[in-house]
Amino acid sequence: MSEMVNVAVDGMGGDNAPAETVKGAVNAVVADQRVKVFLVGKEPVIKEELKKYTYDRARLEIVHTEEVIETGEPPVMAIRQKKDSSIVKCMYMVKDGQCDALVSAGSTGAILVGGQVIVGRIKGIERPPLAPLIPNMNGISLLLDCGANVDAKPSQLVQFARMGSIYMESVIGVKNPKVGLVNIGVEEEKGNALTKETYPMLQKCPEINFIGNVEARDIPMGVADVLVCEAFAGNIVLKMLEGVSDALIHKIKEGMMSSFKSKLGALMVKPALKKTLKSFSTEEYGGAPLLGLNGLVVKTHGSSKAIEIQNSILQCIAFKEQNINQKIKEQIVP
Amino acid sequence: MSEMVNVAVDGMGGDNAPAETVKGAVNAVVADQRVKVFLVGKEPVIKEELKKYTYDRARLEIVHTEEVIETGEPPVMAIRQKKDSSIVKCMYMVKDGQCDALVSAGSTGAILVGGQVIVGRIKGIERPPLAPLIPNMNGISLLLDCGANVDAKPSQLVQFARMGSIYMESVIGVKNPKVGLVNIGVEEEKGNALTKETYPMLQKCPEINFIGNVEARDIPMGVADVLVCEAFAGNIVLKMLEGVSDALIHKIKEGMMSSFKSKLGALMVKPALKKTLKSFSTEEYGGAPLLGLNGLVVKTHGSSKAIEIQNSILQCIAFKEQNINQKIKEQIVP
Repeated sequence: MSEMVNVAVDGMGGDNAPAETVKGAVNAVVADQRVKVFLVGKEPVIKEELKKYTYDRARLEIVHTEEVIETGEPPVMAIRQKKDSSIVKCMYMVKDGQCDALVSAGSTGAILVGGQVIVGRIKGIERPPLAPLIPNMNGISLLLDCGANVDAKPSQLVQFARMGSIYMESVIGVKNPKVGLVNIGVEEEKGNALTKETYPMLQKCPEINFIGNVEARDIPMGVADVLVCEAFAGNIVLKMLEGVSDALIHKIKEGMMSSFKSKLGALMVKPALKKTLKSFSTEEYGGAPLLGLNGLVVKTHGSSKAIEIQNSILQCIAFKEQNINQKIKEQIVP
Repeated sequence: MSEMVNVAVDGMGGDNAPAETVKGAVNAVVADQRVKVFLVGKEPVIKEELKKYTYDRARLEIVHTEEVIETGEPPVMAIRQKKDSSIVKCMYMVKDGQCDALVSAGSTGAILVGGQVIVGRIKGIERPPLAPLIPNMNGISLLLDCGANVDAKPSQLVQFARMGSIYMESVIGVKNPKVGLVNIGVEEEKGNALTKETYPMLQKCPEINFIGNVEARDIPMGVADVLVCEAFAGNIVLKMLEGVSDALIHKIKEGMMSSFKSKLGALMVKPALKKTLKSFSTEEYGGAPLLGLNGLVVKTHGSSKAIEIQNSILQCIAFKEQNINQKIKEQIVP
C-alpha cells in the first residue's frame, strides 16, 4: 500500500458549510482508501453533521478550531489575527507536514495570503498562481493565473506555464500539454508590453509545448490545455465564462417558456440538455490549486456542494502520488 | 428638412464585400431619407452589384478606388502606402469634411491607425477608444476600450468613461447611463495598479453616473450601461462573450441531437430559441465607433452581413444629429 494522503479540509469555509463540506469529506473517504481527512472547524457542529453518515473513523478526524474567517474580512489582517480559525489551522497543518494538502471553500483572499505567508512558496518560485480547471468544448484547460497576482512579470508567466504543464501532464494526464499565451491576437507582435516580452521567453522553453498566442474567442474551443496569463486577464476569462454561460442558459430557458409549443419541446430536450450543460459548468472540476507552495492548497468555489469538495480532496491524491512539488523543484527552480 | 448625413462606406472591406456591403448600403438609403452613401471601392464590381437594386440614385454615389488593404497587412505600412485603397479614401473623405462618417468592415488595424493618423483626434482627446455595443440579459452595454489602446493610463480611462456616457445617452437614448469600471472585485481597493488609480478619478467626475467596479461575471447581467477598461481587458471581455456563446450554442445543439426524443423536442423549441439567441448575438448591434475623432469612424465585424452594414450606417444619423463630437469637445476637452 502506498502512503496515506492526508488532507486538511476547512469545515467552516463556503456558503454551504458545514453540511456540504462534511458530506463531501465523508464521500471522499468512502470513495478512496488512500485518503485521510482532517475536518477542521467547530467540533460540535461538525460532529452533529457527521452523525448522518457511516465511514471509516480511522480516516476522518475532527480538529477543533473556534474562529471563522468571513468572506468580507481584509485577508492579511484576518490571517494575522484569527490564529484559531479553520483556514489558518489548515494552513499550519500543511506547513508542519501533518497534512499534504488542504481544501477550502472559504475566503479567496485569506487562502491566497495564508498560502503564501503560512504554507510558503517553494524556494525559487516567484509567485504561486491560482489555477482553476475550466471547461471547453472538448474537455478542460488549466487557466493560470486567475486571481493571485495582478500586474505579473514575464518571468512569472514563464513559471506559470511550466508549473501548469507539469500539473496538466501529471495530475490530469494530458500528454505534452499545449501551452497558449492569452492575448488579443495570434501574431507574435500582438498584445501589451507584458505579452510581447513573455512570448519569446516561452518560445525558448524546451520543456513546454508552446503553441503561441491564444485569443479569448478560442479559449472555449479548447485550443490549449494550459492557458497562461496575468491574474487580471485570467479573472476576466474565468468570470466571463461563468457569467456568459449563466446569462445564456437563462435566456434559453426564457425562450423555451415563451410558447406552448416550445414548452412541450423543452420537456423533451431537458434531460439531454442537462447532461450537456453540466459538462460546460465550471463547478464540475474540483477546486483550483495554488501552485508552487510547500504543500498543496486547493481553493474550491464559495458555493461548493459536496461533489466539488469530494473531487477537490481526491485531486490531492494524484498531486501527492505524482510528486508534483518534487517535479516543480527539479524542473523549474533555477 | 435637417441636413443630409453623408456616410462613406468601404465597399471592399470585410469577408462579404462587396455583395453584402452594397446591399446594406442600398437598404440604408431606402430606409432613411436623411442618409447619403458614398460607396468607395472598385467601380465595376460595385456597379455590377448595384444593378440588383432600386434606390434613390441621388443618395448613393460610387467613388472609385483601385487598391484594397487586406486583413493581414501591417496596418501602418498599408495606410501609408495604399493611398488609393478604399479605407484610406474613406478616411480622407471624412477628414476633408465631404463625409460626416465612414463605415468599414475591413482591417481593424488599418481602421484604428487610419482613424488616428488621417481623420485625427479631437484636440485634447488622448486616445480614441473602439467602443462596441455588447448584448446583455436586459439590453445592451457600451464596452470601451476594446482594441485600440493597450496599456492605457488612468486619465485615458476617465475620458473613455465620459465619451461613453455621452454616446449611450445621446445615440442610444439611455438616460443617465450607469458607468462601471471593469475589475476583478467590487471593492474600491481591488484590482491592478491601473484600476486602483482610475477608481477615485472616476468618483470625482460629476458628469458621469459612476457605479463603481463591475466584475466580469456581472457584465452579461447588464449591471452597467458603459463598461470602462483598458483594451487588453476589453478585448478579452468581447471575445469571451463571443466564444462562450458560440461554444455553448454548439453544445446545446449537440445535446439536442443526442436522442430521438430530444431531436423531436428541438424542432419544437427551435423558433423560440432562435429569437432569444439573436438578441444575445454581438452581431446584431451595428458597428463599433472609434470615439474622439474629428468625424465618426465605425468599424463593423469582418463577417458583417447587409443588416449590420445598414445598422452601422443608420447609427451615423444619431451621431451627427445629436452633435456627439460637439458635446465631446464641450464637456471633455480641458
